[in-house]
Amino acid sequence: MKIGILGGGQLARMLALAGIPLGCEFSIFSPDREACAAPLGRFVCSDYRDEKALMELGASSDVIAFEFENIPVQAVAFLGPHLPVRPGAEALRLAQDRVLEKTLFTELGIPCATFFPVDSLEDLHRAAASTGLPAVLKARRQGYDGRGQTLIRQSDELAGAWQRLGGQPAILESLVDFDREISVIAVRAVSGETAFYPLSENTHHHGILRLAVSQPHDPMQAQAEIYARRLLDRLDYVGVLALELFQAGDHLLANEYAPRVHNSGHWTMEGAATSQFENHLRAIMGLPLGSTALRGVAATMNLIGTVPDKARILGIPNTCLHLYGKACKPGRKLGHVTVCADSMKQLQQILSDLSGLLSSEAVSAVAETGHYQNQKEGGCA
Amino acid sequence: MKIGILGGGQLARMLALAGIPLGCEFSIFSPDREACAAPLGRFVCSDYRDEKALMELGASSDVIAFEFENIPVQAVAFLGPHLPVRPGAEALRLAQDRVLEKTLFTELGIPCATFFPVDSLEDLHRAAASTGLPAVLKARRQGYDGRGQTLIRQSDELAGAWQRLGGQPAILESLVDFDREISVIAVRAVSGETAFYPLSENTHHHGILRLAVSQPHDPMQAQAEIYARRLLDRLDYVGVLALELFQAGDHLLANEYAPRVHNSGHWTMEGAATSQFENHLRAIMGLPLGSTALRGVAATMNLIGTVPDKARILGIPNTCLHLYGKACKPGRKLGHVTVCADSMKQLQQILSDLSGLLSSEAVSAVAETGHYQNQKEGGCA
Repeated sequence: MKIGILGGGQLARMLALAGIPLGCEFSIFSPDREACAAPLGRFVCSDYRDEKALMELGASSDVIAFEFENIPVQAVAFLGPHLPVRPGAEALRLAQDRVLEKTLFTELGIPCATFFPVDSLEDLHRAAASTGLPAVLKARRQGYDGRGQTLIRQSDELAGAWQRLGGQPAILESLVDFDREISVIAVRAVSGETAFYPLSENTHHHGILRLAVSQPHDPMQAQAEIYARRLLDRLDYVGVLALELFQAGDHLLANEYAPRVHNSGHWTMEGAATSQFENHLRAIMGLPLGSTALRGVAATMNLIGTVPDKARILGIPNTCLHLYGKACKPGRKLGHVTVCADSMKQLQQILSDLSGLLSSEAVSAVAETGHYQNQKEGGCA
Repeated sequence: MKIGILGGGQLARMLALAGIPLGCEFSIFSPDREACAAPLGRFVCSDYRDEKALMELGASSDVIAFEFENIPVQAVAFLGPHLPVRPGAEALRLAQDRVLEKTLFTELGIPCATFFPVDSLEDLHRAAASTGLPAVLKARRQGYDGRGQTLIRQSDELAGAWQRLGGQPAILESLVDFDREISVIAVRAVSGETAFYPLSENTHHHGILRLAVSQPHDPMQAQAEIYARRLLDRLDYVGVLALELFQAGDHLLANEYAPRVHNSGHWTMEGAATSQFENHLRAIMGLPLGSTALRGVAATMNLIGTVPDKARILGIPNTCLHLYGKACKPGRKLGHVTVCADSMKQLQQILSDLSGLLSSEAVSAVAETGHYQNQKEGGCA
């Protein structure tokens, strides 16, 4: 089957690597000439508003996917009438706007932080009076890896925060004092069949995901699945969806969802019977879903900004290296290491060895424990 | 690291898929315009005797590998002075000629069938008098998947068999009455470090490998490793090597070795901590070897000639599909299915379900048990 992917980053690249053995052929659409997925398929390099180029992608595809929620929804909506786009434009549209996304959570009875749309400084003052401070001001759109977010601790910071955001449509969210961040990677087939991976417990640092650890038999698994299923069914979703959640006491609060494969699910590549990439492809191709069962325990440690010496990484037993073919740049996700182990104790030991190789920035993220706050967490690509 | 591969079939393709996440870039050299590995790298399409094209491959590579032992040894020897070729020309040269190969086995104290070089009908008569009949006449060179082999049961068949082989240099081997066929996939690093995968028990049909099943705690493991290690050390080998063996009672007899990744090791893709493909690449790049430990039990079932409906294959739990992107053709290896399970009983059940989907030819191979004879076994690509 011929699959067209809007976006050419590492998620498209790993989808292609998972799909080639399934007999898929890929076309990659990206405005970025250096798109790291481009070498794995036919490459259409153009702007997302270029309808001629989009038609070219459509003509060489049986189904369209996207790898990133900041793809213009117009591109997806344009292709929709011509061939299946999975998941559809609606899942993308709602994920692109934090107000619509949190409104959806609320409609579906999925708890989340108190929020108010903010379109002016006056709105912001009113919103802050309702949420109380501290609160987090976020751009409604185009936010990921913690970009476009400001923590406001006192009312005299409101004007400065609004100015820093440049007056764009925003959302003010009450600050969630949470114990841990988790995510559930869910997948839904064309038939409506669903499957869920074991939860991932996630550690961010400077807004970027550093570490994601599989959680077998997590007490919050059932509740997270209930929430994810509501989203999947409401959106008549096809493919993998990631729901990021905060746990505060015994409660879960939704942070955001990503209508795609997700960094916190990369450990499924070697750590689950079927990877999230393969299951996304199986779903959008109308094939049966694969088992989401864990194989032992597993974790993903991201490589941010630089890549340590390969020989030293691979010298640590049970590590699998996944590089994205991207040039080094501070704060950039260049790859990840999957670690698999038979027990959580063994996993932690390996992660500790691995963290010794990473930059001090990453090391400190690994060393930190518990208690994060959502001003750092804008989701992770 | 830039890796040049001589040969562009499925083994090169799976090497590339394993190497891209490690940050490798591939150049594929093949005279076949339809080479299925070609889309995964820079493609040099020319004859193996084309020195200019070989230099082009060398210029775009840091290390050269080959995926098939029927690559002309001259091509490998030509590149050798310019950059590392791993494994080297000597491992290839000896594997290409059944007489040299079995002479090596004998020199190293690795038992194998009694054999005699045959260059004429007179030689064949003399050889048959020594081996007794039945015996197997094989071409010395270019044999794989059982091609170029004839079982001779009675002396009046000698002249016909010789004629069918077209007078090419040959070898007569005594017929081995064996209980099972096994192989050991071994790997040796630049440092001389070695590692061995758990044995694979292999089932051939019409000379082509159909089924390979991992054998945890096999009583013949230690003996097979001793023999494989002798080969690795003697050849100062770097990379993966497969040694195919017959078991007769408590004894092992070497059939042949392949200086490369091997079909009987494909289950290592999901069934071992590190796949044979990744370990071959780690070795030739001078990186530390990865663990060869089994993850549960695993098997490979080959897809020969046709590919059953994908949805039906993937509807069977614990199956992983690997298609090679090749056009259907009778007797052609088009892909394989890896099956992983927690127990041998569960594995056998899944293999039984899977065999129900395959062509009657393949099914019959799966249904057969034990007791094969080496006239069918020319090794498998």
